[in-house]
Amino acid sequence: MKVVHSPLHARHDGGKELHRGELVPCFEMPSRADFILQALRREGFAVGGPREFPLESLLRVHDAGFVEFLRTAHAEWRAVGKEGFMLPSGFPARSLRRDHIPAGINGKMGYYAFDASTPIVEGTWDAALAAAHCALTAAAHVVEGERGAYALCRPPGHHAGHAVYGGYCFLNNAALAAQYLRDHGKKRVAVLDVDYHHGNGTQDIFWERSDVLFVSIHGTPETEYPYFLGYADERGAGEGEGYTRNFPLPRGTAWAEYVTALDAALDTVGGFAPDALVVSLGVDTYEGDPISAFKLETRHYPLMGERLARLGIPTVFVQEGGYAVEDLGSNVAGVLKGFLARG
Amino acid sequence: MKVVHSPLHARHDGGKELHRGELVPCFEMPSRADFILQALRREGFAVGGPREFPLESLLRVHDAGFVEFLRTAHAEWRAVGKEGFMLPSGFPARSLRRDHIPAGINGKMGYYAFDASTPIVEGTWDAALAAAHCALTAAAHVVEGERGAYALCRPPGHHAGHAVYGGYCFLNNAALAAQYLRDHGKKRVAVLDVDYHHGNGTQDIFWERSDVLFVSIHGTPETEYPYFLGYADERGAGEGEGYTRNFPLPRGTAWAEYVTALDAALDTVGGFAPDALVVSLGVDTYEGDPISAFKLETRHYPLMGERLARLGIPTVFVQEGGYAVEDLGSNVAGVLKGFLARG
Ligand SMILES: [Zn+2]
Ligand SMILES: [Zn+2]
Repeated sequence: MKVVHSPLHARHDGGKELHRGELVPCFEMPSRADFILQALRREGFAVGGPREFPLESLLRVHDAGFVEFLRTAHAEWRAVGKEGFMLPSGFPARSLRRDHIPAGINGKMGYYAFDASTPIVEGTWDAALAAAHCALTAAAHVVEGERGAYALCRPPGHHAGHAVYGGYCFLNNAALAAQYLRDHGKKRVAVLDVDYHHGNGTQDIFWERSDVLFVSIHGTPETEYPYFLGYADERGAGEGEGYTRNFPLPRGTAWAEYVTALDAALDTVGGFAPDALVVSLGVDTYEGDPISAFKLETRHYPLMGERLARLGIPTVFVQEGGYAVEDLGSNVAGVLKGFLARG
Repeated sequence: MKVVHSPLHARHDGGKELHRGELVPCFEMPSRADFILQALRREGFAVGGPREFPLESLLRVHDAGFVEFLRTAHAEWRAVGKEGFMLPSGFPARSLRRDHIPAGINGKMGYYAFDASTPIVEGTWDAALAAAHCALTAAAHVVEGERGAYALCRPPGHHAGHAVYGGYCFLNNAALAAQYLRDHGKKRVAVLDVDYHHGNGTQDIFWERSDVLFVSIHGTPETEYPYFLGYADERGAGEGEGYTRNFPLPRGTAWAEYVTALDAALDTVGGFAPDALVVSLGVDTYEGDPISAFKLETRHYPLMGERLARLGIPTVFVQEGGYAVEDLGSNVAGVLKGFLARG
């Protein structure tokens, strides 16, 4: 299986987030990608760089003003004399307007964001764009006949919506891959999101569409980030009614219960009979993850990969979360090897 | 003029906010109230404590679930093993649901908040409740015949809406005072907000009412906090259509231009012919304010007070912002003395 990786991910570095009353370097840190890359190389995977894609590829799933904001945000920040990482100080939350984009950079940043844990640094755009290109390249490999391909995306993408960023995500790599598959002959595409956190951005993007099925298994938003999307009663709207399916699970869920939800999710995917599958592959379901609360063990990831392979659908794997840095590699490699083992 | 003050304000202390990439103690700090109190004592104002009011007084302008959240939030935070100050990590901003309150404390906090600069500490509820009682007591003084009364409220209140907190504000002291006046014989009440920042919370509370006029002069939300409310096209809705008026002004506004907006605002208030007036008295319009950008000088605050007195309406002053700590006292005293000078 081809692995697509760009060293540009490392430019997204130096931001901090608030954790237990202290400002700490983001859990979403460059070494995450390094550990995954090392493990995949050790396992013999062939690693290649991304191709280039026109900016218009991004506009297939994202708002043009939003993309322009991401592209220019840090330059605008520096232009008004600020430095370091950018975090918004106010949001269009309850009781506030959402119909006007403020002119100043602070207000604009709040308009496009939904949390204060997703810093933008000088290199964020370069890294996010490279991650998007990795996902598009992996999708291209599958269009060109590969059974599976893996995009080592960093920053991750599944929290980024049509015109919002947050949850360490800027551009929605998985949604871009799914749209690329749609635009290149795949009539029906499913996205299965197995990250610990709900893929609110992907759901937002495909909410009213019936050509892309979105299925997510995640920690319940009653207690887990992103709190305001990912409940079981969300099933899509309009044309998309019935094409969004959420499987929220309680904190502490271990493999025995997880696999029941996974099998139900896979049945849903199978029932849709997609021509291609995108897996939003977060491994923060791991018992050692510092910010999540499922109890999957390293030995379970190959089992997940096998089950995915049983669907028999060409599959693009897109890296999402996972913060137990030193164990990321084995868990990701486990899924991919499990997938390949089932020929 | 009677001054109402409670030492309980000091219990709201120890929180931090993000400022230029560093976590710093909140600009809204206990010494603010100490400096104001000192200056007013020096000027010979009589200082008294607040009366007690039943919890139901708060529910005249706030949502019951919101008040219960504020009352129990820090205990709930400690109950799940956390300590220190609470800041939310995700908000129901654009693309997310606002119709469900998450069960866990992190999600619930994000649901009720609209920024990540308003920490809740163990003593926040005691302080916010005492500030509300100060405002209600000052309103009672006016109901009982005083021409003017001043509530030294801390934390401030004008950013707190019917069911949201933010901008250093938890309970809306000015709205509570206005409602108290309405409930005790004053048929028409005006709120004039002269804080540097738009009083989004007060506007939210009275948006659909014609018995309380809300008028605000403030830094334009195009560039200034709270960014998502306070534009000139916001004029109320339903019954309240025409009873909200905003005067946004650009950064750098000095007295010469400020006074034009002030006079227009006073004309609007006068035209409403209210039986009582509440002034949301922020003095962060001061040239020395560290987080604001108007250019009013200490000598202008008595002029503001005189102009307010010219209306000839019984007036409750409620302290809002102002962060140039050592100059707060003279600026606040200036307004009150200017008001009293015009007999
Ligand atoms: Zn995650
Ligand atoms: Zn203010």
